[in-house]
Amino acid sequence: MRVYDIILKKRNGGELSREEIGYLIAGYTEGTIPDCQLSAFAMAVYFRGMSHRETLDLTLAMAGSGEMVSLSGISGPIVDKHSTGGVGDTTTLVLVPLVASAGVPVAKMSGRGLGHTGGTLDKLAAIPGFRSDLSIEEMIGTVEQAGAAVVGQTETLVPADKKLYALRDRTATVDSLPLIAASIMSKKLAAGADALLLDVKTGDGAFMKEPAGAFALAETMVRIGTGAGRETAAVITSMEQPLGRAVGSALEVEEAVLTLQGRGPADLTALSLFMGGWMLFLAQKAASPQEGREQLAKKLAGGAALEKFREMIRLQHGDAAIVDDLSLLPRAAATVPVQARRSGYIHRLGAELVGRAALALGGGRRSGGGSIDAAVGVTLVKKRGDFVESGETLAQLHLNCAPGAAPAAAAEKLLREAYALGPAPTPEPALIWGYVDRAGRHSIQCGGGEY
Amino acid sequence: MRVYDIILKKRNGGELSREEIGYLIAGYTEGTIPDCQLSAFAMAVYFRGMSHRETLDLTLAMAGSGEMVSLSGISGPIVDKHSTGGVGDTTTLVLVPLVASAGVPVAKMSGRGLGHTGGTLDKLAAIPGFRSDLSIEEMIGTVEQAGAAVVGQTETLVPADKKLYALRDRTATVDSLPLIAASIMSKKLAAGADALLLDVKTGDGAFMKEPAGAFALAETMVRIGTGAGRETAAVITSMEQPLGRAVGSALEVEEAVLTLQGRGPADLTALSLFMGGWMLFLAQKAASPQEGREQLAKKLAGGAALEKFREMIRLQHGDAAIVDDLSLLPRAAATVPVQARRSGYIHRLGAELVGRAALALGGGRRSGGGSIDAAVGVTLVKKRGDFVESGETLAQLHLNCAPGAAPAAAAEKLLREAYALGPAPTPEPALIWGYVDRAGRHSIQCGGGEY
Repeated sequence: MRVYDIILKKRNGGELSREEIGYLIAGYTEGTIPDCQLSAFAMAVYFRGMSHRETLDLTLAMAGSGEMVSLSGISGPIVDKHSTGGVGDTTTLVLVPLVASAGVPVAKMSGRGLGHTGGTLDKLAAIPGFRSDLSIEEMIGTVEQAGAAVVGQTETLVPADKKLYALRDRTATVDSLPLIAASIMSKKLAAGADALLLDVKTGDGAFMKEPAGAFALAETMVRIGTGAGRETAAVITSMEQPLGRAVGSALEVEEAVLTLQGRGPADLTALSLFMGGWMLFLAQKAASPQEGREQLAKKLAGGAALEKFREMIRLQHGDAAIVDDLSLLPRAAATVPVQARRSGYIHRLGAELVGRAALALGGGRRSGGGSIDAAVGVTLVKKRGDFVESGETLAQLHLNCAPGAAPAAAAEKLLREAYALGPAPTPEPALIWGYVDRAGRHSIQCGGGEY
Repeated sequence: MRVYDIILKKRNGGELSREEIGYLIAGYTEGTIPDCQLSAFAMAVYFRGMSHRETLDLTLAMAGSGEMVSLSGISGPIVDKHSTGGVGDTTTLVLVPLVASAGVPVAKMSGRGLGHTGGTLDKLAAIPGFRSDLSIEEMIGTVEQAGAAVVGQTETLVPADKKLYALRDRTATVDSLPLIAASIMSKKLAAGADALLLDVKTGDGAFMKEPAGAFALAETMVRIGTGAGRETAAVITSMEQPLGRAVGSALEVEEAVLTLQGRGPADLTALSLFMGGWMLFLAQKAASPQEGREQLAKKLAGGAALEKFREMIRLQHGDAAIVDDLSLLPRAAATVPVQARRSGYIHRLGAELVGRAALALGGGRRSGGGSIDAAVGVTLVKKRGDFVESGETLAQLHLNCAPGAAPAAAAEKLLREAYALGPAPTPEPALIWGYVDRAGRHSIQCGGGEY
């Protein structure tokens, strides 16, 4: 077998065999196949795509390139969840204890945030003492005790993806659907859960700007998951405006606590119940996603989910007192309002621009290695559809710099760009676009209001 | 400027600026831009192509990556010639002295052969003592004295092409029209001639199997040449069956001498006069290619071209006595006939298979570094359109191994595959498909017979 022939076959539109794909990924991981051949291959895949069978084989080859975590020590189907990334997306912080409170063990391996989207690990780092660097054994112990754990991906997981992603990032081959799907799913398969719910975001602040692209990615990933023997479904949700009102690590932990107390924003609460219902269904704890959602609504109302969050924080060495006293979370030195300069209805609230405003304040990571200020961020006082009077506050900036300093000015400018006002109200945007399961695509398009 | 953005722009179908292309080629030549980025770029070019402007800028950037030869010391327009490579293509050996005999200086930089196609330098190496490793100064001196020189490409010429070609050869990005055109033309522009005739082969034994592809490559290269201020034209000629009857270094030198004596094969003679006529026209020594051809026919008939070959060999330290005594050329130990197993008309004589037969005998180079046996090769006794009786000789193998040994058996098998017989005669195939000049494409489709 020659790498040259594999590249040529893909370039000419051929379908690669499992052996050819396995040869390529194993050789690349070991270092016997050089970067220059993989980058040409990735570009050929960008143009030619991959069949579902090829994408599954690629994912399996990548997943098998390093350690495959076994969670078989934990009883019952273990469910994992993955989001393609958004702005102010606090759902994981709510979902993990919520689903665990219904008796479904959750073992969640998370990544760190990059650019305008936040990462769950960075958010949890705002809780004093919280440790996400548990070993696999410690994670299993925590899940057995608390029913839930959120940890960082270990270094030994999917080395092929680490290498290939870094290469794609240099060679303009990131946005290829099969390569994206294989990258996400190889990590999920290696992480060992039995069932998986994918949250594929679409809209301004998401990687997939259009629902059609999000549905296609969701379908590819669900086929991979089911093809690999894991119960898998995907929901397609909106990232047109940020979810909830908080963007920033400590602000989002606060919002998660409020949501678990039943006092959170409607959209975040609705989405958490919707996705949690799916997770219960996939873990065979509910006859349908709807029934799962009803179970979880009761858990939320009864305080069981909040209690589970407290337990999880404690077992991961964090200060669980933050649940009762939010002032124990890091606070920014100053809060500065961004006021409307005219009156009108908010037509648009661009998620990416809001994410970049938080990034400008120090609340995000510009490249792989930067550090994050957990205290800073943005609180969105007005959201899409709201009416605002001239002079009223649109949003609050939480600053650790002087109010007139460059980061504050940059963040204010970005926020002003993010808000677009019009003379008349606009219809409430869909929060959920649909879902993909074994049977295929289902479009439902609804707002958060009806839940 | 970022390499990533350049790759992305090309991947998305954009047109690159001169500055972007220059940045890429300069950085790659210097080693500041890595292989992995260039191979992804090359694959993007394979799929997206390049505009004529981009291809010209790429060629100029590559040509300028190393030494640019100045031939300004030689008086009069100097003409160069390039063939895209064929089997048994002895035209350069005939053309160089032929054109020089009409007073047009020829400074030809040649490459070595690879795979089933032979290289002019390898053929000339069959002449005892012949040196093609002249310095630029020695080459200029030889052209001033003899009016002609054929030398190897110096190491300092177009380093960008050396690096990029080696990379394309590993990453399945060789057969991209703009990259092929830029590779050829960058070397020709750097070699310093004022005028250039390109011979673009089409057919079984050529890189471009179909005339349409050959015309497209010719057009691209002529636009580059004229865009760079050189008088440039291209002829599109057939490489469906080998040219002439000889395939192998010494055998082809012998055939060139016979042709210069007016006793050569009709197709080789016709093609040499046709191309030589164009070279005289491009060098402004003839009012039209036709008139140039008539001038050269007289030079050939009068013996001036043969005399020029003798002079050129002598000045390049070779044994000019071979012109009068062909037995001074290397001879193979044995000659073995390949006989027809049935009677019929020869419908096809696949050039590539014949080339591979010569390669099997040791007469070609499998990879960049191998050595060549100058004595071995194939003589084609029967060619397309001929009738052969069962038991008659189709071709002669010239061997330096035992007649029953593996190379001989392999060569015979390949030759038998190359010859396809049918019950009725077939029309004589076109030898010349047309030409491309500043005004565009001209289809003429004719055999060698009418010249």
